Amino acid sequence: MDEFSFIKSIQPTGYRQSSLIKGINDDAAVFRQTSQDIVTSVDTMVEEVHFSKKTMTPYHVGYRALAANLSDLAAMGSTPAFYLVSLVVPKGWNKEELSELYRGMQELSDKYQMDLIGGDTVSGKELCVSITVFGYVIKRMARYRNSALAGDIVFATGTLGDARAGLECILTGQDEPFLMGRHRMPSPRVHFAEKLTVLERVTLNDVSDGIANESNEIAEASAVDLHLDFEKVPYSPSVATLFPDKYEEWILSGGEDFELLGTVSEKDWSKVQEIAKQTNTVVTPIGVVKESVDQEGRVYMVKNGEKSILNKSGYTHLQEERD
Amino acid sequence: MDEFSFIKSIQPTGYRQSSLIKGINDDAAVFRQTSQDIVTSVDTMVEEVHFSKKTMTPYHVGYRALAANLSDLAAMGSTPAFYLVSLVVPKGWNKEELSELYRGMQELSDKYQMDLIGGDTVSGKELCVSITVFGYVIKRMARYRNSALAGDIVFATGTLGDARAGLECILTGQDEPFLMGRHRMPSPRVHFAEKLTVLERVTLNDVSDGIANESNEIAEASAVDLHLDFEKVPYSPSVATLFPDKYEEWILSGGEDFELLGTVSEKDWSKVQEIAKQTNTVVTPIGVVKESVDQEGRVYMVKNGEKSILNKSGYTHLQEERD
Repeated sequence: MDEFSFIKSIQPTGYRQSSLIKGINDDAAVFRQTSQDIVTSVDTMVEEVHFSKKTMTPYHVGYRALAANLSDLAAMGSTPAFYLVSLVVPKGWNKEELSELYRGMQELSDKYQMDLIGGDTVSGKELCVSITVFGYVIKRMARYRNSALAGDIVFATGTLGDARAGLECILTGQDEPFLMGRHRMPSPRVHFAEKLTVLERVTLNDVSDGIANESNEIAEASAVDLHLDFEKVPYSPSVATLFPDKYEEWILSGGEDFELLGTVSEKDWSKVQEIAKQTNTVVTPIGVVKESVDQEGRVYMVKNGEKSILNKSGYTHLQEERD
Repeated sequence: MDEFSFIKSIQPTGYRQSSLIKGINDDAAVFRQTSQDIVTSVDTMVEEVHFSKKTMTPYHVGYRALAANLSDLAAMGSTPAFYLVSLVVPKGWNKEELSELYRGMQELSDKYQMDLIGGDTVSGKELCVSITVFGYVIKRMARYRNSALAGDIVFATGTLGDARAGLECILTGQDEPFLMGRHRMPSPRVHFAEKLTVLERVTLNDVSDGIANESNEIAEASAVDLHLDFEKVPYSPSVATLFPDKYEEWILSGGEDFELLGTVSEKDWSKVQEIAKQTNTVVTPIGVVKESVDQEGRVYMVKNGEKSILNKSGYTHLQEERD
């Protein structure tokens, strides 16, 4: 493949972000941002590891790759601005498929008024899509994992386990468009997270591995205990109907839902609900934050009236209550 | 490989850049830069395409990957600040080798006081190292390819063709430490480029493909003609001695030397020489910039008294002089 002509074909014809000084076409891109803080992250997807041509079209691959990155920006409470794309392209991918991949990214970048400002395209044995995203956030208002306090309400956006169930539908030939769409075209909660900047404090974490993992990350980083109520964790009824033996596991650690897990003070809970309404986001309270006696930070889950410790992998085990 | 424990092992224990607000350990990194412009670029290296275990140790792979990125920052006249690392890791690479790879990057990042602020590590069939770098530059002082003017002197740093010759030495078992080092551990011209900010105008381009390509990029972007003198292009005598049939080609398009090609007004040439001296950089004038009659921007090369057009691939062909 001629890298040069391909790059020409995917180059933007104009830029939208006023902070951009130099986009594609030089050794690097240049931007200026004096009034806000800058948020950046990289996320990589590999063929046959994160997707295959059996489970996703090239368009989906591009869409999902950028969606995963936007979810990281949302979890920081930031507004998307730019992205860089590094592609490793194997022989089996032709120019039309690569254009489709870029079209998938463009659909999302159009939605959020982002600019593609650079990248690198090299050849290799398997397709790898590595995206670096840049977002802006009001100074000192980036949202971290380490800000949860005892007394907070724990909440989750959307429904959990959908992406894993959607993948299973695709792999087993069950036509469930909603769930399949949740795997291929997840919805990063960008608008919801942006509006949360009116709150003095909110803890946010991106649900990429599953809330079992992400709740533990918050508990550890904040040195608090999270007490979750399994019965309250939101999921799609069809997931339970279609996969009765699996759905409980997938809700906790199916991963790749790209929802947000957060904590907020009780007094601000109504504001979170109001912002959820404004942005058409389903938000569900699923537990509370309590002090951690030894500052280690653990996650407890009540299920069928029994309280267990929930570890990062989603396994639960009973533990003597500490006093 | 356990991604979590590996990431722990390569995490920095502290940060150096005062503009950094949040490094590794959340969904994204956060920084603030109100006084300077921000420069960013991504560059990707793939095993068996850009290197192999036969030609480089893991330490070299890391060193060279970051060096290539730093060369892009240098070509923008910017000072390195941060980097993100995305790794695709195949089964054949163990944790010790990956630590060595990070040590190679760290050697360079220590030299330039950079901070590693995030990344992603996933599994795949072949090792891919994708690095996103961030640099800072005085507002409006980023250096582009499109600023060359008729009357400018064209210059190159270092010696050209070394990296390609060094690779050949490695592949054919010729023990030439200097050339081999130029392939494995190139020297991005960061300090030299930073000091050029005292100049009102200087055109810079990173020599990653070879000056045949990069001179054409400047000519096209600036809509000027570059007239180069082959006899003046700097190269190491050993390259000509060892590879008499190849060195002329490699000087023009061997690639991966990570030197800088630039143009500057005649009046500022002495300042460039002074800065080169201060930073121990060899700088050689190799031609002049002239007006392009049709604004297309071409590169002419005089060799053995004959003037030809030099195209991006390094091939030359005679053309009727335009009037």
